[in-house]
Amino acid sequence: MSGFSMVDVGGKDKTRRRAIAAGKILLGPEAYPLVAERRLPKGDALTLAEIAGIQGAKKTPDLIPLCHPIGLTKVKVMHVLRPEEQAVEAFCLAVITERTGVEMEALTGASTALLTIWDLSKPVEAALKIDALRLLYKEGGKSGTWINPEGLPDEARQLLDS
Amino acid sequence: MSGFSMVDVGGKDKTRRRAIAAGKILLGPEAYPLVAERRLPKGDALTLAEIAGIQGAKKTPDLIPLCHPIGLTKVKVMHVLRPEEQAVEAFCLAVITERTGVEMEALTGASTALLTIWDLSKPVEAALKIDALRLLYKEGGKSGTWINPEGLPDEARQLLDS
Amino acid sequence: MSGFSMVDVGGKDKTRRRAIAAGKILLGPEAYPLVAERRLPKGDALTLAEIAGIQGAKKTPDLIPLCHPIGLTKVKVMHVLRPEEQAVEAFCLAVITERTGVEMEALTGASTALLTIWDLSKPVEAALKIDALRLLYKEGGKSGTWINPEGLPDEARQLLDS
Amino acid sequence: MSGFSMVDVGGKDKTRRRAIAAGKILLGPEAYPLVAERRLPKGDALTLAEIAGIQGAKKTPDLIPLCHPIGLTKVKVMHVLRPEEQAVEAFCLAVITERTGVEMEALTGASTALLTIWDLSKPVEAALKIDALRLLYKEGGKSGTWINPEGLPDEARQLLDS
Amino acid sequence: MSGFSMVDVGGKDKTRRRAIAAGKILLGPEAYPLVAERRLPKGDALTLAEIAGIQGAKKTPDLIPLCHPIGLTKVKVMHVLRPEEQAVEAFCLAVITERTGVEMEALTGASTALLTIWDLSKPVEAALKIDALRLLYKEGGKSGTWINPEGLPDEARQLLDS
Amino acid sequence: MSGFSMVDVGGKDKTRRRAIAAGKILLGPEAYPLVAERRLPKGDALTLAEIAGIQGAKKTPDLIPLCHPIGLTKVKVMHVLRPEEQAVEAFCLAVITERTGVEMEALTGASTALLTIWDLSKPVEAALKIDALRLLYKEGGKSGTWINPEGLPDEARQLLDS
Repeated sequence: MSGFSMVDVGGKDKTRRRAIAAGKILLGPEAYPLVAERRLPKGDALTLAEIAGIQGAKKTPDLIPLCHPIGLTKVKVMHVLRPEEQAVEAFCLAVITERTGVEMEALTGASTALLTIWDLSKPVEAALKIDALRLLYKEGGKSGTWINPEGLPDEARQLLDS
Repeated sequence: MSGFSMVDVGGKDKTRRRAIAAGKILLGPEAYPLVAERRLPKGDALTLAEIAGIQGAKKTPDLIPLCHPIGLTKVKVMHVLRPEEQAVEAFCLAVITERTGVEMEALTGASTALLTIWDLSKPVEAALKIDALRLLYKEGGKSGTWINPEGLPDEARQLLDS
Repeated sequence: MSGFSMVDVGGKDKTRRRAIAAGKILLGPEAYPLVAERRLPKGDALTLAEIAGIQGAKKTPDLIPLCHPIGLTKVKVMHVLRPEEQAVEAFCLAVITERTGVEMEALTGASTALLTIWDLSKPVEAALKIDALRLLYKEGGKSGTWINPEGLPDEARQLLDS
Repeated sequence: MSGFSMVDVGGKDKTRRRAIAAGKILLGPEAYPLVAERRLPKGDALTLAEIAGIQGAKKTPDLIPLCHPIGLTKVKVMHVLRPEEQAVEAFCLAVITERTGVEMEALTGASTALLTIWDLSKPVEAALKIDALRLLYKEGGKSGTWINPEGLPDEARQLLDS
Repeated sequence: MSGFSMVDVGGKDKTRRRAIAAGKILLGPEAYPLVAERRLPKGDALTLAEIAGIQGAKKTPDLIPLCHPIGLTKVKVMHVLRPEEQAVEAFCLAVITERTGVEMEALTGASTALLTIWDLSKPVEAALKIDALRLLYKEGGKSGTWINPEGLPDEARQLLDS
Repeated sequence: MSGFSMVDVGGKDKTRRRAIAAGKILLGPEAYPLVAERRLPKGDALTLAEIAGIQGAKKTPDLIPLCHPIGLTKVKVMHVLRPEEQAVEAFCLAVITERTGVEMEALTGASTALLTIWDLSKPVEAALKIDALRLLYKEGGKSGTWINPEGLPDEARQLLDS
């Protein structure tokens, strides 16, 4: 027996939990302006990625084997242009009132948004890169509030207040 | 940023919510009697549609991007023959004890039932039509009980008592 | 035995098949301008519905019990404003190179798009209605080309050429 | 009307419910040692089946039409070798704090685990058999604790304590 | 590295492949007549199971980790009453024109049908049992036709001709 | 109209296409040895991630809105330890014989594997990071073979030969 288990969370209290994840896609000189100005031939990647990220967060228990099925109460994806890196940074806020979660939902939402931008940008540039997908903020549950030691970008604070 | 968001419902109370949706499929003189008498070559469309409607209601958060994943506590689909219009009317009742919903679940259930009748009837008649898909009744949550201004058919009252 | 069956299509040839479905959502005087001008509080319903419609078409075999899993080669959703009816009409084109299909995929795509517009409009107006969901055009397979006897709107022709 | 319904559980209390299901796959003299010693060409079937069983339990409401969508709080799959029968017995424990369930989740988990072992063993032996899939234990809800009249194997007791 | 892989089937030819799987659910003296006479309080389990089995077969690649996504061309589920054992036997025929498959699809279809009968019968009898889930017949692909050494029941022959 | 479309690939030929994607998860001094030595409390993250990656690749058209549903013929996930960075690098090979694809499938597979390692490592370390998710290799289709300008690691060559 390998001993995998979707661990028992039945004894935990339901508390409001929030998490923010973020990651970047490096687009390069060809694709960046087309994404940023929403001029890609296949359509506006940023809008599509917002929606795909929300749907992706809902699919987390289907994708990550030991994640519990949980009832997300809020998901929001926000994109920030990073012209100095020819990159887009995707932020995903996920909120629940549950016994466990919600980091993986935020991470899966951000990751799905970035992969969607990739899909629309790849006819223009093949050498794309997703970088620095990380958890920025976590609140609720026994372990309290956690902020990434590298700090909380302003955009993440803005999402928390949204 | 387009600003889509699966909006925060964490602050709302969980209350019992019920909704009924209904819609019609106009079958025409060839297909109507075969559906009504359950004699279609591919099988009894009404029974199949009842089951597909229940399953469809459960898939609502997968289909409608900003719908929250919610734990349906009851779903029931009922078909009523409308011989004067050569039509079948599908009613779907959906019930939850949640912070949000349950109109979209009832509508998706009714819509899936009607599309399933379509699928079995189309070898007989191509010019089918789904009409008058609407919300009939909504109860629970902050806004209280709402009844469609066109009135509540007896069949809907019967579903509420089922 | 009820005799349902996902019928054998293995003996049919793979041919290019195209179908267009369309349907309307009647929004009323409050919601219509907000949808048309993309000013709804929850975001641009028309863009969201385009994407949801494409995703919905892909889910057809999951929703409609006797539909075969097929490899869609193209899906496109187009919305047309109908100010005289305070309505939006959704058109969905679906294309495959397969042994069966593709009407149900086009219908499911149009239906999912309309339900998504509903979801974003319902905070403004509860008495919405989806009407006239119908097949407009079908091409390919043994039965050849079929055009809805009520005629093919210009927008559908435009989709066929897109 | 056939009268199918995902029945109303909204009036029931949420209680902690646990269920254990088990079943055997008879592998025969060729496949059994390869499975037991984790030497199958396609990989370690037992580890793969543990994970597939957990994922399968989560898909129960998608597979079994009248099952309610519920929030599983724990799922664990355990395999026990039965060399005297050249068989593997799969046990699945499922736990929820809900108004209904959790037998079907445990059964679907065990069944999915056994089918996964089948998939990896079939290149070696076609005449496999799944036998004795049954509920062993059920606890919580109005009907209290139920133990299969054929008795509760030690492995099931061990799972309850895990 | 554990070395799991959804193995490469790209070099194989697409051939028509058929498989039949079957299994029994032992219902006991209380539940058997209610299932057989379609008088269960929750509805006709046999009809529901036919449909669930078809849908279940389509979900095989989602449930069994190393199964390839394949385009089923036919699925049919048939139930046969076994009064001498107070049992129902479910047969599932699955057909494809593909490079691999279709045993697991037939087995998953039969298994889902049996679990659905379980779900409707469990309010009447908890000590149910699924037994003798096995492959009866396989045709197509490099290995040719295979018949279960225990023989091919008449009902399976009937399904092959359906 | 925003003009999104799952673009028409019906006119393209079906060719064998292969793609490899890779990405790293930086685990830090606490989590890295536990992952590398497969001693995490929740189980062997690397084995779980291999399987989750294969399943994730199959879900690509469900996650990425404009991706076509395609029939993957092979998927394989391989992990390579990078002790100098306290990281694991996940490689995903995806193969199809289709009209389009298969980069997004390889990327989604690698991304899902990395998120699964994250899920099992997060009780030990919250400040994880996924970095350098990129396409390494693409073969087949009109544009021929493409190799990432940063070069093809030996492990990717090994996967191509597997």
